[in-house]
Amino acid sequence: MTEPFDAVEVIAAKRDGHRLDDARIDWVVDAFTRGVVAPEQMSALAMAILLNGMDRAEIARWTAAMIASGERMDFSGLSRPTADKHSTGGVGDKITLPLAPLVAACGVAVPQLSGRGLGHTGGTLDKLESIPGWRADLTNERVVAQLEDVGAVICAAGSGLAPADKKLYALRDVTGTVEAIPLIASSIMSKKIAEGTGALVLDVKVGSGAFMKHLDQARELAETMVALGTDAGVSTVALLTDMSTPLGRTAGNAVEVAESVEVLAGGGPRDVVDLTLALAREMVTAAGRGDVDPADALADGRAMDVWRRMIAAQGGDPDAPLPTPRETHVLTAPGDGVLTRLDALAVGVAAWRLGAGRSGPGEQVQAAAGVVLHAKPGEQVRAGQPLIELHTDTPERFARAMEALDGAFEIGGDAPEAPESVVLARVD
Amino acid sequence: MTEPFDAVEVIAAKRDGHRLDDARIDWVVDAFTRGVVAPEQMSALAMAILLNGMDRAEIARWTAAMIASGERMDFSGLSRPTADKHSTGGVGDKITLPLAPLVAACGVAVPQLSGRGLGHTGGTLDKLESIPGWRADLTNERVVAQLEDVGAVICAAGSGLAPADKKLYALRDVTGTVEAIPLIASSIMSKKIAEGTGALVLDVKVGSGAFMKHLDQARELAETMVALGTDAGVSTVALLTDMSTPLGRTAGNAVEVAESVEVLAGGGPRDVVDLTLALAREMVTAAGRGDVDPADALADGRAMDVWRRMIAAQGGDPDAPLPTPRETHVLTAPGDGVLTRLDALAVGVAAWRLGAGRSGPGEQVQAAAGVVLHAKPGEQVRAGQPLIELHTDTPERFARAMEALDGAFEIGGDAPEAPESVVLARVD
Repeated sequence: MTEPFDAVEVIAAKRDGHRLDDARIDWVVDAFTRGVVAPEQMSALAMAILLNGMDRAEIARWTAAMIASGERMDFSGLSRPTADKHSTGGVGDKITLPLAPLVAACGVAVPQLSGRGLGHTGGTLDKLESIPGWRADLTNERVVAQLEDVGAVICAAGSGLAPADKKLYALRDVTGTVEAIPLIASSIMSKKIAEGTGALVLDVKVGSGAFMKHLDQARELAETMVALGTDAGVSTVALLTDMSTPLGRTAGNAVEVAESVEVLAGGGPRDVVDLTLALAREMVTAAGRGDVDPADALADGRAMDVWRRMIAAQGGDPDAPLPTPRETHVLTAPGDGVLTRLDALAVGVAAWRLGAGRSGPGEQVQAAAGVVLHAKPGEQVRAGQPLIELHTDTPERFARAMEALDGAFEIGGDAPEAPESVVLARVD
Repeated sequence: MTEPFDAVEVIAAKRDGHRLDDARIDWVVDAFTRGVVAPEQMSALAMAILLNGMDRAEIARWTAAMIASGERMDFSGLSRPTADKHSTGGVGDKITLPLAPLVAACGVAVPQLSGRGLGHTGGTLDKLESIPGWRADLTNERVVAQLEDVGAVICAAGSGLAPADKKLYALRDVTGTVEAIPLIASSIMSKKIAEGTGALVLDVKVGSGAFMKHLDQARELAETMVALGTDAGVSTVALLTDMSTPLGRTAGNAVEVAESVEVLAGGGPRDVVDLTLALAREMVTAAGRGDVDPADALADGRAMDVWRRMIAAQGGDPDAPLPTPRETHVLTAPGDGVLTRLDALAVGVAAWRLGAGRSGPGEQVQAAAGVVLHAKPGEQVRAGQPLIELHTDTPERFARAMEALDGAFEIGGDAPEAPESVVLARVD
């Protein structure tokens, strides 16, 4: 078969600062998926996109081409509206766990198709797999049936959705081309649009533990994704939320499940509860159920009921004890004062090095590995009190985890300006 | 073996506009040669280098790392000094053919290690292979022996010189990253420095038929290469020469050999003679033999003697008739007037499409294919006279060659400002 374009000509156009027209975008994404455009060609193009950018129309077409590379799911037969949430990834970000059952308890179905963690931000599926018996892999038919029956599904995204994105993401990961807003936006949105959700709420993290370190970058990414979703007929909004310090008091796998269950039981750390409710309100509103207040469903135990049914439907035992670590190590406060800073990235890297995350695809994670924080910024601490607790099954990992935490916190005389809310801004 | 650096970290540094330090450059070139840095990683890095540049010290280190990837030749045992010439490639650029024997006739040994053509600029080896019996492949020992005995060698560069460059060039060719001055300069200079020549004259072409379309780009490339050569102890100068119209009256294989022999016999087109003498003077001067005038060696037949011995030493018969094409097609002048323009790129592409060049590595070229020009810019033409003669063994190629020549020439009332000389500037 003769190809209508030449890869070098397409690369050279973006290299020289030109826009790519629809036909070239359709071709290059499709030809890459077919293996006609080689990985070394696509990585050169990705670098040119990263450095020279793409306009909104190019990003929209690129996203459409990635959607067209695979199947689309369809939830239009369900008896209730659907809403999904996507977070760009943060440390201690277990929000999906309490959020999905909470929104389902409000009458909105939540098809939360997730990935696995790679690097310092944990993976939702890795966290849930610390629950004995729980399985991440469901067929599309099971997903639809569980949405109708339970109202919430958290499972592995099937390989049929946007296979071009899967192949491109693996390439970007090893070629220094992850950090391109057009490619991040199209990667996320192609999967979410192909998934077929009716509404989508984006949690775009900002700060040291996030991919986007600055508010202006995060806003650009959020605006790009909201426009892509809206144009594709998905009711989309984004919250920009703080990721300078970890969310909640845990980062890891089983420890984050336990904290999520606390939230569903009506307790849990304030920031986790607040963000869960803020996202839930956006989801139910975007799905057209703005009349329902998620705070009620959390307070009266309906969210917990859905959680238990959701875990059980995927083979998990919601009453089984969670794995505990073979070894723990406690860092104590070196002096009296106020904890003025606790760096998200450092805590994320420590949890990762303890075994909560993986360094390469396919690696096993430790269910019991992670970090428990005994103080959060703004709280008083006393010399010698436990500050950070490290969990692992393999104690030889402590040294490198401690290294990551070197300089990660400060104790001072005055409490820092506490942010009003973990939510910094809203984009719709 | 543990690698001291991570490819993604090196790519990200250049992507973000930082300089690469010596250790990272040494590692990335070596690791790419070993296959540890993957092609898709190197192509992303090449694109980042193309768009963000490299400073002189980075280019010098990159060049040194490519030299270190292979063997170095040594001509210090020869009884005479050595000088080599490198052209960045042009249409009808047969200058190496008369130049090498001419400079040898002046007492300077010329180790002209060449490549094959790819694209619209022909390859020196392809041209010489139209001489019956002539062979391009020599061992290093044969090269040294022939330099001592005959004084000139034009042969294929061995695969032992700068293998990193060979691998990188093949990658750049398919990833839109050829057009990066740091990579062009280091590619050329790594091979020439590893080859061990004592002096080097660079012919940097400027104009439609050249890689560099504008004088300022060509000057930047020339200055970069002269600095690299000088710093490596090679006496290096560059001439910037015009490539807006083909050199001489032929572009192809056997036709260019025939024109070169005319020059050696004391005739030939003025521009070819002038450029051959200009480059020869630079080479003998750079090699410390500025007392010798190449014009004498051309006039008295000594250059022709060396040519015949050089061809014979490599198995060729200097008296054998050259191949003739099975088919020719003549374009005639559409009106009376002065030929005001004849585009180099168009003629180069026409010759290529007639079979003189190859579209991919390993393709066979036709010895008899090419273009003969019956008029050059500034000359009077009359309606109906032959203007451009096309040669090929495969007449189905005429149509696409004619297409390339569409709009390639203009006939007007006034002669254009003739450039003083084909040499536009000199860089040392």
